Amino acid sequence: MLYQQKLRFSTTGRGTYNITKQVAEVIEKSRITSGICHLFIQHTSASLILCENADRTVREDLDNYMAKLVKDGDSMYQHNDEGSDDMAAHIRTILTQGSMSLPIHKGKCDLGLWQGIFMWEHRTNSHKRNIAVTIMGE
Amino acid sequence: MLYQQKLRFSTTGRGTYNITKQVAEVIEKSRITSGICHLFIQHTSASLILCENADRTVREDLDNYMAKLVKDGDSMYQHNDEGSDDMAAHIRTILTQGSMSLPIHKGKCDLGLWQGIFMWEHRTNSHKRNIAVTIMGE
Amino acid sequence: MLYQQKLRFSTTGRGTYNITKQVAEVIEKSRITSGICHLFIQHTSASLILCENADRTVREDLDNYMAKLVKDGDSMYQHNDEGSDDMAAHIRTILTQGSMSLPIHKGKCDLGLWQGIFMWEHRTNSHKRNIAVTIMGE
Repeated sequence: MLYQQKLRFSTTGRGTYNITKQVAEVIEKSRITSGICHLFIQHTSASLILCENADRTVREDLDNYMAKLVKDGDSMYQHNDEGSDDMAAHIRTILTQGSMSLPIHKGKCDLGLWQGIFMWEHRTNSHKRNIAVTIMGE
Repeated sequence: MLYQQKLRFSTTGRGTYNITKQVAEVIEKSRITSGICHLFIQHTSASLILCENADRTVREDLDNYMAKLVKDGDSMYQHNDEGSDDMAAHIRTILTQGSMSLPIHKGKCDLGLWQGIFMWEHRTNSHKRNIAVTIMGE
Repeated sequence: MLYQQKLRFSTTGRGTYNITKQVAEVIEKSRITSGICHLFIQHTSASLILCENADRTVREDLDNYMAKLVKDGDSMYQHNDEGSDDMAAHIRTILTQGSMSLPIHKGKCDLGLWQGIFMWEHRTNSHKRNIAVTIMGE
């Protein structure tokens, strides 16, 4: 069995967005109870991460760390037509990932207790973001 | 065909653990000879990497590099209830990956000659780690 | 349905190589119209990324950023028998990814408008690189 659907999100600027519930709903709708759920973000300045889902300071620390690792407006960037956050967003995306697969077991997304699925918007302005979901299994 | 199994490991602290053999054994048990083997670590402070399997200094260098890139106990971390390595472990996980797929071809995991599959424990203390394996194919 | 093929490339040294077209051709050949296309690079010093496909300064900036993040010939590297770029190449591979899945929808690789698939050669000399492609779906 195979099921495909797009998830569409509006972001309100840079930061992490918990999409675990929306992914779980697509899995339920697919009626596939064992297999793989593949997520693919159709953009190069937002990414997907698995992150601790309980303490929100984890994601604040993550934002602060990334802001230091990949500086906005670095003087070495040539690609800056769309603003000082544009090239940084591309680099941040590549250091994380745009494609992720999750196990489905006994009808549920088989995450660990403390794991959540997050979309990470890397642009400072709000954007519309599409995630292509493909579920395969039985 | 679809086959699912959990692999369980006890780590003895931060470092890389070669799990290539254990993954190969699950693939053999599945009797699937062509397809995909998906690995998913159910934790947010340990990750999966593909790494050179011959010279162990590669993984020592990797450990040393990562210790400099993501410092334990950085003063910017708010999330430090579980110790100075906790937030660093979350960041290290996100900069590597928790979800990985491998090709199965002619009954074997189709790795390159120098490739091994490693679990990377990012916490300094020992932990129990689960990897959900999902194999699909024919 | 399941289809497997190897893609073979010769690189001319460090840099990004657009392989979107070659991947699209394998998908077309597979006759699978909905599903997942899995790419797996059988090496530990080259990787796969999704990147902006229009402005080539994005990839130049990316090369420059990575050259600063992971320095060639760092004095802390023990693994340097093959040259000053060897250990850096392993680290660069691990910070990006060697395994990637792409959605196939309506007979096509369902990339976003600005997304391309790139192989990133991390060694400074030319190399032969194999990518194992596994396509599953219907």
